[in-house]
This record gives sequence, structure tokens and C-alpha cells, in this order.
Amino acid sequence: MRLEIVALSTLPEVRRGDDLALLIRQAAADEGQLIDSSVVLAVAQKIVSKAEGAVVDLREIQVSALARSWASEWTKDERLIELIFAHSRRIVKMDRGVLIAETATGLVCANAGVDQSNVQGVDFATVLPSDPDASARLLRAGLGCGAVIITDSFGRPWREGLVDVAIGVAGFDPLDDHRGRTDRHGRQLASTIIAVADQLAAAAGLLMPKAGGCPAVLIRGFPLRPAEGSARSLQRKPEQDLFR
Amino acid sequence: MRLEIVALSTLPEVRRGDDLALLIRQAAADEGQLIDSSVVLAVAQKIVSKAEGAVVDLREIQVSALARSWASEWTKDERLIELIFAHSRRIVKMDRGVLIAETATGLVCANAGVDQSNVQGVDFATVLPSDPDASARLLRAGLGCGAVIITDSFGRPWREGLVDVAIGVAGFDPLDDHRGRTDRHGRQLASTIIAVADQLAAAAGLLMPKAGGCPAVLIRGFPLRPAEGSARSLQRKPEQDLFR
Repeated sequence: MRLEIVALSTLPEVRRGDDLALLIRQAAADEGQLIDSSVVLAVAQKIVSKAEGAVVDLREIQVSALARSWASEWTKDERLIELIFAHSRRIVKMDRGVLIAETATGLVCANAGVDQSNVQGVDFATVLPSDPDASARLLRAGLGCGAVIITDSFGRPWREGLVDVAIGVAGFDPLDDHRGRTDRHGRQLASTIIAVADQLAAAAGLLMPKAGGCPAVLIRGFPLRPAEGSARSLQRKPEQDLFR
Repeated sequence: MRLEIVALSTLPEVRRGDDLALLIRQAAADEGQLIDSSVVLAVAQKIVSKAEGAVVDLREIQVSALARSWASEWTKDERLIELIFAHSRRIVKMDRGVLIAETATGLVCANAGVDQSNVQGVDFATVLPSDPDASARLLRAGLGCGAVIITDSFGRPWREGLVDVAIGVAGFDPLDDHRGRTDRHGRQLASTIIAVADQLAAAAGLLMPKAGGCPAVLIRGFPLRPAEGSARSLQRKPEQDLFR
């Protein structure tokens, strides 16, 4: 098995209302990259949010007492803290200046996905796309590729550094369930479910420098098993979550 | 940027005492794959443990009362539970049949890395290599590649499915620290440290089916910045760990 992973390097700065599929198709054409049904396209959340207008003007935010007090204690922008609260349905951890929240769509991540990197101006921040699976489906339909992954960079408990994960998918099952299959010695694989969408996102992340510029990556050679797919399958159910 | 990721498919079953570098060099030669200083080699922990003899005969284990009671409550092999305890320096979570432990080298993972998949016979289990960075350095010296990553499949809080991570590295810094660099809009990237070794491990994991057979993967095209490197950099320090 052999994978080829290529970053598109000629995407323009994405603005509200842009047709992202069109921009990606043009960049791919300019770079001589064919997009067909064998391709997995990984796209950074940031440009999806920008195209969808999921950019918030912080000057319009009414700051609550809790946001003000936390921001003051940890020298943060109180408007950003309020925006994080507004995009959280549950605070998982709020400690030592770190805010880990569960978003409306069930993602658990730092700052509920609110972010200012690669956004123009100190008064603006992006929030996550409201339905990342739908964003992925739209891109897939517009490009005719095999699968689409919307990626974001998440921290992890116990481990340093961010890794990219899949927050939206279309065209395949983000989990590869090996249960019932046997290993080389005939032993049943008891509990082996692989988060292939997260592994694909991490692979694509290697080609998306955080300083920006290559937010769309093509992955070729991955044996896709077509399915509708939803990144919600990657979210652990509350009753099985030991770290709520 | 463009990455090529290739799995070696002709590695033989690895046994205690095998020279893993030699086996990998032979498989690469047979498959026409050049290994040079531009290559990152990812190797599954399982074959490193086998080569190093980190395989335990469960029949020799003295089972404690705690291991017996937990195994009985959750229908597990009490010898395996005892082996997990023996390879733990701290139990992080012990709930609903799940055992998450911190190993002697500071990794936090399910079952302290003790595993029976792809091991011959119900009476045997592998444990993690005693010094995975040293294992990686040895392979790197033996193969002359740019970097080596020893990978293992870990679960994650909040998310379903396993992803491969780096438990040992040689030849590069597993963290890529963007702090102080600026984004496209001139904004300083405040807290962006990327766990590149884990992203490389996840990418390689896409080519390592859990049923076994392709435990060595070559990654070409990754812009390595040479350094000694240690996977311990990926372990969050206790004082910064919100999930101890």
C-alpha cells in the first residue's frame, strides 16, 4: 500500500461567501492535480468557517461577569471568553487559564473551537462551522472527490502538542471496525476500532503549516469504503466516557 | 509539499533476537525501496517488542488479590491484569472494565501497553519496549535513515477509535514549536506546538492494518529538522496535566 499526500499551495485567501469547491477546483487545476473519486480531500476548518461566514466581530459581544472575571484572572480577551461560552454546551475543564468545552455538535476541545489565528484583525475570531458534516458533504458534491474531511487541530490530555482531527466527514465511515476479524495468528481482534478519519486528518496536518497557506490537502491511495459517514461517530457517548 | 508513504509488505514474522534493522533493510531491498537520510521510518511497537524479547509467558505470573478481583468482575484474564499492574507506575483510571495506566517511561495508555494481538498463543503477551527512544536510535543507526518512530495505537478521552502515536523517536524533535512565528496576517502564534511525531505515526498507521502484516512504513518528503529527539517530549508534565 502506498499513499500520496499533496498540499494545494495556490488557494487564495478565503472570504465570506466564497465558493470553496470552486476555489479548490481552480487551485488543483492550476497545480496539475486531478481530483476524482479516489481522492480524499482534507480541508482546514479555518477556511470552511471563513467561507461560511462563521467569523464573529468581537466588538458586538456582551460580556458576562463570569467571562470578565476569568479573562481578568488569566489575562485573556474577555470578549473571546464570552464567545467561547456562547459556543459551549458544557464546560469540561476550566483550570489554570485553560478552557476545555463541549460544543453544540458534541466536540470536546480547547476554547470550543474559537480561534483567532489566521484571522484578519484583533477584533475578529472564527467559530467552528455549524454543521461540519454538511460542509464536508457540500464540498464533496462540488468536487466529485471520494471523501472530504474537515480538520481542526486539537490538544490531548496527557500528551503535548496539537494533532489534527476530523470534525466533519463525508463519503466514508470515519471508524474502521476490525472487531470480529482475526490477526495473523487467528486470534479475534476484540476491541480494535481505528479512527481512520483522525489518522487521515493527522496525515494531512503534516502538510498544513499553522502559519497558513496550505489549508487543502489531497490524499491518494487510501482504500476508501464508500459510506455516508458522520464525524459524530468519532464522539464518545457520554455513558462510555470515563473523562466527563 | 508532497509526502509519499509506503508500507513494507514482505517483512517476515519477527522473533526474539532478530536484527530488526537487517530484516527491514532486506524487505526494503526486495521491494525496491531505498532507505536514505530523507526517509522517516515508522515501526510498530509490536515487532520491536518481539525482537527485543519483550514477550511475557503469562503462566509464570503470580496473580495478586486485586488483579484477581478486577479480572473476575470484568471477565478478564487475571494474569494479564497482573502484568498490566506490573508495568504501571500509576493507575490513571480503573472503571467499567477499562484500565488506563501510566507506564514506567511516563506513557499514559490503556493496559499500560500490554497486548495480546498478533502474538502467538493465549499464554503470551507483549509489553512495551523498555526504552523506545533507544530502540528507535538503534534502528536509525542500523538503517541510516533520517528518523525513526516507534508507534503504538492509543485510545483517547472523548473520542472513539484508536490512533497511532509515537512512543519512541530518533533523529528529530517530535514537537514542532511555532511559538513566536507569525501567521499570514502578522499575528504571533501564541500557543501552537504541533505533535509532528504523532501526526507522522498516525499517517503511518493508515498503512498498518491491525490484523498485522505491514508493521514498517517509510515516509518520504517530510522536511526533517535533524535533532536527537525523545518521545518523552510528547508527555505532558504532571504540573501541566489537567487530567491526572
